[in-house]
Amino acid sequence: MKKYYLLTPGPTPIPPQVALKEALPILHHRTSEFGQIYKDTAEGLKYIFQTKNEVYTLAASGTGAMETAIVNLLSPGDEIIVASCGNFGDRWAKIAQGYGVKVISASVEWGKVVKPAEIEKALKENPNVKAVFTTFTETSTGVVNDIKTIGEIVSKTNAVLAVDTISGLAGQEYRADDWKVDVTVSGSQKGFMLAPGLAFISLSDKAWKLNENSKIPKFYFDIKKYKKSYLTNETPFTPPVTLIVSLQESIKMIKEKGIENVWNECKILAKASRAGMKALGLELFGEVPCEVVTSAKVPEEIGGKIVKTLREKYGVSIAGGQGDLKGKIIRFAHMGYIGKADILVGFACLEMVLEELGVKIEKGKAVAAAQDALMKG
Amino acid sequence: MKKYYLLTPGPTPIPPQVALKEALPILHHRTSEFGQIYKDTAEGLKYIFQTKNEVYTLAASGTGAMETAIVNLLSPGDEIIVASCGNFGDRWAKIAQGYGVKVISASVEWGKVVKPAEIEKALKENPNVKAVFTTFTETSTGVVNDIKTIGEIVSKTNAVLAVDTISGLAGQEYRADDWKVDVTVSGSQKGFMLAPGLAFISLSDKAWKLNENSKIPKFYFDIKKYKKSYLTNETPFTPPVTLIVSLQESIKMIKEKGIENVWNECKILAKASRAGMKALGLELFGEVPCEVVTSAKVPEEIGGKIVKTLREKYGVSIAGGQGDLKGKIIRFAHMGYIGKADILVGFACLEMVLEELGVKIEKGKAVAAAQDALMKG
Repeated sequence: MKKYYLLTPGPTPIPPQVALKEALPILHHRTSEFGQIYKDTAEGLKYIFQTKNEVYTLAASGTGAMETAIVNLLSPGDEIIVASCGNFGDRWAKIAQGYGVKVISASVEWGKVVKPAEIEKALKENPNVKAVFTTFTETSTGVVNDIKTIGEIVSKTNAVLAVDTISGLAGQEYRADDWKVDVTVSGSQKGFMLAPGLAFISLSDKAWKLNENSKIPKFYFDIKKYKKSYLTNETPFTPPVTLIVSLQESIKMIKEKGIENVWNECKILAKASRAGMKALGLELFGEVPCEVVTSAKVPEEIGGKIVKTLREKYGVSIAGGQGDLKGKIIRFAHMGYIGKADILVGFACLEMVLEELGVKIEKGKAVAAAQDALMKG
Repeated sequence: MKKYYLLTPGPTPIPPQVALKEALPILHHRTSEFGQIYKDTAEGLKYIFQTKNEVYTLAASGTGAMETAIVNLLSPGDEIIVASCGNFGDRWAKIAQGYGVKVISASVEWGKVVKPAEIEKALKENPNVKAVFTTFTETSTGVVNDIKTIGEIVSKTNAVLAVDTISGLAGQEYRADDWKVDVTVSGSQKGFMLAPGLAFISLSDKAWKLNENSKIPKFYFDIKKYKKSYLTNETPFTPPVTLIVSLQESIKMIKEKGIENVWNECKILAKASRAGMKALGLELFGEVPCEVVTSAKVPEEIGGKIVKTLREKYGVSIAGGQGDLKGKIIRFAHMGYIGKADILVGFACLEMVLEELGVKIEKGKAVAAAQDALMKG
């Protein structure tokens, strides 16, 4: 009987019309019927990525697409730059190092944003660098990096730029081609309003050229196999059919709304979330807050309790901090199928929980601040 | 308006009560609610694998679990034996060779079954062999290998035995522990009556010992990460939540029926399918037919047309041959949620298609032969 409200940065809520597609009788994947659906999603993904390049769909978590980027671009001994500002940026380095790739760090403290000038400097000092890996919106801290400027810098060198957009795509404005991003990776369970289980990756011509010399062994994540199967609207291995059928529906919804309108709505929800946090007296966390998740500092002694109490007492799921930020921040997601009223539910329940945990707050104030921001638009 | 009948060896039909679980509101994966579901599926998987070892769930196609076995057991330069008898057995060799592993072949012609004596001989001649890789039911040809005897042989050596049961598990009798199998890999879209997108793997203590020295690089498929997360009923990366929720339902159905009864029903469907093929004058293909898919030879000039016409005219999906067998055989699956009446639908439509394609057959005869077999049980 318990009713849940999901304000977590993945999985995000799934629209009923998308969820029901998962329940349709399954199609065989080597048929023209499924091929047409796959083709339709592949075209839609290009629109959402804002790219002319092909976008491939993998049966994997988002991390699978990150690994796909690493193992298809590089060889053991290659040098890369990792510009990380949080947990998911650090993952680029961990994957690469495991494959014998030398990682040059242009990373910053968690909470800060990546510095394009540092990347530029590292590229100048290390002319053999094959690729730069960074993160669009860093979910673990709630910041957004300036991918456009980074793309400008990297595009002038021989290196390719690979960006993890798992949490930001179909949430905050992102333009793979205009911003000169070579490799974009993403996942299904955030802005796409889908269940987890699908990962996406696109490669520019420059990235494909680097792929030609890649010597890291791979089989399941060998992108050449996906490129070949793409020609016949297929995947090299049995695809998650029901998830792809539901992807077709969610892409249809995004197209009908228009990607710019999706971005704009997230921007408004972000404004409302920041206003709500401030009204609660909570300091925002993160140098440049992104538009898909809002982080705020909380008193350490009650940090873990806030998340737990919200879920157990009111069915509201938000996220806490990861790694060193555990217990120190809370994170409200506002992407995908999270709407205006959901943000208000989140703050209304957060107010009650904070008061219960002994924090002095004025009930209704955060809700009102969020309302004001939502009404201004 | 078109109605489809799926008699393909994966994806197989999904029971409505399982499919609907996919459409439920999504749960967050780091909650006790989801943890309980994950734990429940992990226990159920042990029952279906017939093992006391932990069974880990990956977000991947079945091939992802095969790669997981290779990269976690071996190091570049290691020697292994691959005993293949078809397309999926050959995949073991392809994955391993890609990772610099030396493959000693104990393979047989497609259509034949693997010879345990050949494996024994190869193990004696190559005492450094680290592992033997083979296939339980080889979907591409429709045969079943004698895993029990192979397990007996391999268990007396230092090598571990890894078996691909993607198409056979929860279909034909399989007992991982009793048969001394060290590594069992499987997938969700066959006997499990689920959508594709989940892969499963279990490891014996002997396999874990081999894992300690494995030097092949890995990240997403690093089994140690899954073992660690398993302790807290989690997965290292965001799991396909909706597929795991539906897995809980399908496991519940299998447990209620009893795995022995599941095996027995497949056996009866296999008998009926073989009887039907014979009644049509089609020669069975495969040295030892398995109980999850039945293969029969068809006149080459109409091989491809049979599959296409069945699907386009009657909505019935069966499989043709793969590789060199393309156009030479047809394959009827009878696993998972394929029932007695489905087999009769398959033969009734196949009779019409064969007559339309100019083959002299007596309509109703194959249906009657299958009926007889079904009624005898």
